[in-house]
Formats: sequence, C-alpha cells, structure tokens
Amino acid sequence: MAGRPRVRAEALDVDAIVAAAVKIARKGLATLTMRSLSDELRVSVGALYKHVSGRDELLQLVVDHVLQQAPKAGSDTGDGWLALRAQVLGVQALMDRYPGLDDAVIARSPSSPVANRLRQEGMAALQREGLSVEDAHKVYRAVTWLWLGSRAALEGRKRRKADIDTFAEALDVLIAGLRHHVERSSKELVE
Amino acid sequence: MAGRPRVRAEALDVDAIVAAAVKIARKGLATLTMRSLSDELRVSVGALYKHVSGRDELLQLVVDHVLQQAPKAGSDTGDGWLALRAQVLGVQALMDRYPGLDDAVIARSPSSPVANRLRQEGMAALQREGLSVEDAHKVYRAVTWLWLGSRAALEGRKRRKADIDTFAEALDVLIAGLRHHVERSSKELVE
Repeated sequence: MAGRPRVRAEALDVDAIVAAAVKIARKGLATLTMRSLSDELRVSVGALYKHVSGRDELLQLVVDHVLQQAPKAGSDTGDGWLALRAQVLGVQALMDRYPGLDDAVIARSPSSPVANRLRQEGMAALQREGLSVEDAHKVYRAVTWLWLGSRAALEGRKRRKADIDTFAEALDVLIAGLRHHVERSSKELVE
Repeated sequence: MAGRPRVRAEALDVDAIVAAAVKIARKGLATLTMRSLSDELRVSVGALYKHVSGRDELLQLVVDHVLQQAPKAGSDTGDGWLALRAQVLGVQALMDRYPGLDDAVIARSPSSPVANRLRQEGMAALQREGLSVEDAHKVYRAVTWLWLGSRAALEGRKRRKADIDTFAEALDVLIAGLRHHVERSSKELVE
C-alpha cells in the first residue's frame, strides 16, 4: 500500500537490464548510472554488478541495442549506393528517437560490434557496385563523417526541420558526387 | 639551486594564462585544470581565479585562441566557394597542430565569438556568389558537419594520411555538388 514494492519479483537478466537502461538513457545519458538503474529495476547495485561490469559496459550495451534496430543495408539486390543511403537515413531516424544518446553512440560506435556489422554491410553494398575495398572505405568514411558531424552539432537538442532537410540534401549531394568521382577514376584506370 | 622557483616573477595576465593553458592542453585536455595551470604558471590557484572564473572560461579562452589563428576567408576578392574551402582546410590544418583539443572545439565553437566570426566570413563569401542567406546557411552547415564528423571520428588520435586525403576529396566533392545544386535551383527559379 506504500507505493510499488522495493524488491523485484521477476528474475534479473541482461535483456531486462538493457531495456531499463535504454528507458533511463532516453531522458539523458547523465542520469544513467548503476545507482539509478538499480532503482529502476528494484534490485540492489550488487545484484546489477553480477550481470554488467559497470557503467562502461552498460553504455556499450545500450548503444548496441539501439543500433541493432537500424535497417539492413540489403543483401545482394538493388543499387549498393541506394542501400548505403538508406542505411544512413535509417540510422539518423533511429537516433532521432533516442535524443541524448548521440554522445554515447559517437564515442562507442568504433568499438560496437553492431556498428561494425553496419559498416561491413555498407562496405559490401559499395563493393557490389564494383568499388575497390579502398574506395569503398573512403566513401563509407566520408558519409559517416557527415552523419557524425550532423549529430555532434546538435549538442543534445532535437533535430529541427532545417537540420533534417539539410542533411538529406547534403547526403544526396555527397553520395552522388562520390559516385561520380569513383566511377570517373575507375574509367580513367581502364582507358 | 633546488629546481625552478615556485613563485612567479612576472606579472600575471590573461595572455600569459592562455599561453600556459594552450601548452598544457596540447598534451590532452584532461590534464588542463586550474591546479595544473597554477603549477605551470607558478602562481597560487587563488591568483588565477582573479583573472579567469574557472575551468569553463579557461577552455573557452583556449578554443578562441586556437581558432583565432585560422586563415581569413578573404574580404571581397576571389571565388567565395574557394574561400570557404580554404577556410575549412585551414581550420583542419590548425586543429592538427593541437591534438587533444578536438572535443573542446566541437563543444565550444557554437558559443565561441571567434568561431562565430569564421562562420560570418564563410557565409559572406557564399553570399558574394549570389547565394541567399538560407542557401548559404545550408551550405555552411553541411560543410561544417563533414568537418566536425571528421574530427569526432579521430577520438584523440592524430589524423593519418588516409584521413587527410579522404577529407580533402570529400570536401571537394561536397562543395562542388552543393555549388551545382544551388546554381541549378536558382536557375530554375529564374526560368
């Protein structure tokens, strides 16, 4: 009768931990601590440490969980350049649903296995278009930079319509230009 | 005879403080504190607080000091698009000389009067080419994102040759594409 019970009834597992962590992180990353998470889950901090090694691992799990929802860059059908474009726009839309996670994603995606899978899919899509590994890398990097920068510039605020429009336009301009650039230089190589 | 004197002989002023702060910050931003700075300057922390209000103001002063060295985007001669390109490449080269300052510059340039002056120069250069304020804004923003993202991706390490080459190529592709895009849409408007 005195509010919700302080002791958790259900068994604690990593899925439940990640779900609760994502819920807290949506409000702002700073509020996500082992302490606030243990409150949310109604378990002791000690019980939490049996499943995750600390805040660092927690952030990694949250980032992986969010990126996991990104659209697949297709397997082997369709235009690889369009697949790359769809992947980036998909990740942008996804990040918009988790305001406050930008810093964590920017900092942790280099070590995230899920971000790595996205990278590999994007690279594979470009190689299907005949790009060398080196060129695919270059293109993927440039596109990633535009995306990363557009997130870093937000500083925690929500994307406004102008941000969304500018990004979509700039992405199309960059992808079309890189495509032209790559195709022209491989043509020169053949001639 | 027992090492350098602990008490500073010269008068303390903001220029001396910023110079010492930049020297420390080059090694890594985390090492720059009011304490480490007072040691470097051989003054008490109290003496330092008479000139700067704290670490926050210090970081802003350091960022402004670094950006102040960026090349001017020209006044009213030459191609405005090339002036923008030169400004961005100039800031990139400048940042390469201050490894470890990326995070501070990314976080503080929105509130930096010097970054604001750079922005205004870049915008003016684009408007000289006939761009509307809105289009100039769009272009400047997209180019800034590419730049910001290329710095955020470094995570404190130095830029490698591949980073430098990819950035220069992507910047050219983006600027050429945006130019084409803007010129085509203003032509459509006239017709």
